Amino acid sequence: MQMIFVVYEGMTALDAVGPYEILSRLPGARVTFAGVHAGPVRTDTGALSLVAERALADCDAPDLVLVPGGPHVAAQTSDTALHDWLRAVDPATTWTTSVCTGSLILAAAGLLRGRTATSHWLALDRLPAYDVTPSPRRVVRDGKYVTGAGVSAGIDLALTLAATIAGPAVAQTIQLATEYDPQPPFTAGSPASAPPELVSHLRANAHLVMST
Amino acid sequence: MQMIFVVYEGMTALDAVGPYEILSRLPGARVTFAGVHAGPVRTDTGALSLVAERALADCDAPDLVLVPGGPHVAAQTSDTALHDWLRAVDPATTWTTSVCTGSLILAAAGLLRGRTATSHWLALDRLPAYDVTPSPRRVVRDGKYVTGAGVSAGIDLALTLAATIAGPAVAQTIQLATEYDPQPPFTAGSPASAPPELVSHLRANAHLVMST
Repeated sequence: MQMIFVVYEGMTALDAVGPYEILSRLPGARVTFAGVHAGPVRTDTGALSLVAERALADCDAPDLVLVPGGPHVAAQTSDTALHDWLRAVDPATTWTTSVCTGSLILAAAGLLRGRTATSHWLALDRLPAYDVTPSPRRVVRDGKYVTGAGVSAGIDLALTLAATIAGPAVAQTIQLATEYDPQPPFTAGSPASAPPELVSHLRANAHLVMST
Repeated sequence: MQMIFVVYEGMTALDAVGPYEILSRLPGARVTFAGVHAGPVRTDTGALSLVAERALADCDAPDLVLVPGGPHVAAQTSDTALHDWLRAVDPATTWTTSVCTGSLILAAAGLLRGRTATSHWLALDRLPAYDVTPSPRRVVRDGKYVTGAGVSAGIDLALTLAATIAGPAVAQTIQLATEYDPQPPFTAGSPASAPPELVSHLRANAHLVMST
């Protein structure tokens, strides 16, 4: 299975690296990190660059595509080169997937029209503009389109997908190999569970997390 | 706070990228990815390269060091250039940390002598050779040395550390911003919880996960 992990300037690294660490362990996985141009791509904090091994134009028949998100929504929803590539390859993919605001990229490319998808909780209200029904769930599958919520949700998305692709025993073996036995020290990872004052704080200061 | 995330050929990407995504959001965090040499470093699957922005020799006074693990244990425990740097900077760090078999690197450098640490569950039995008491816990703090279990445990380690460094409200805000509300589709992330036959399978085939 040929998997393309899309990278672009300003993306959030964990959005791609989390699911990559799971899906790359599937039997027969052939993983390529690719961007509009080949070469290093600086992620959102400016401190970490991931290398696009190939240009997207040289990746013409992926079975699975994963699009990460990032804080710079306007840049993502106007990246026509990326959108053009997504539209070109999507008809032949088995799975078209995203993490975090990567769903806004799929949506802006027109691939999620009439479908249900998730996104970072602070970005869910942007989906209807693209004729997409937002869901607050952590992993949403609508046909071959699988979208994950913010940043860390890509790991759960990938395990879910791994089980669908290769069966639950393989997915569980990967979970055990990556020791994914999460024990967060707080219960604050979603607006439904976090202390309300922190949710209000981030909503009021969404620019700290995401720019329009 | 100056944070150095160590990278090296054959490391596991998520070991570093998970905690980076948390710790880089701490107020005042100054994050650098650094390797023995500056430049791209190919991670364990061969599909993803992370860029070392600087050479370790140019990073002489980190407040926090994080050392990731990887499947090639022998290479890690004999990397004298990395060990020399760790020994040189460790006396002045506030926190010296590792994820997965990164603890074997700290141990091989002699930094954990007489201490308790964790590691990937398949590598715990290698710690006593370095006079380190293994713990199966997911995050272990012994003084300023904080070690995490396999691969994905770095996220929990980082949130724990974020709370200690900046207080629980900041840590919870970062958890909410990264939407870390884990919902793994299976309970198979530790040898204590995974189906016993999968644990036996990985123990018998540890070479699939880790090489000596």
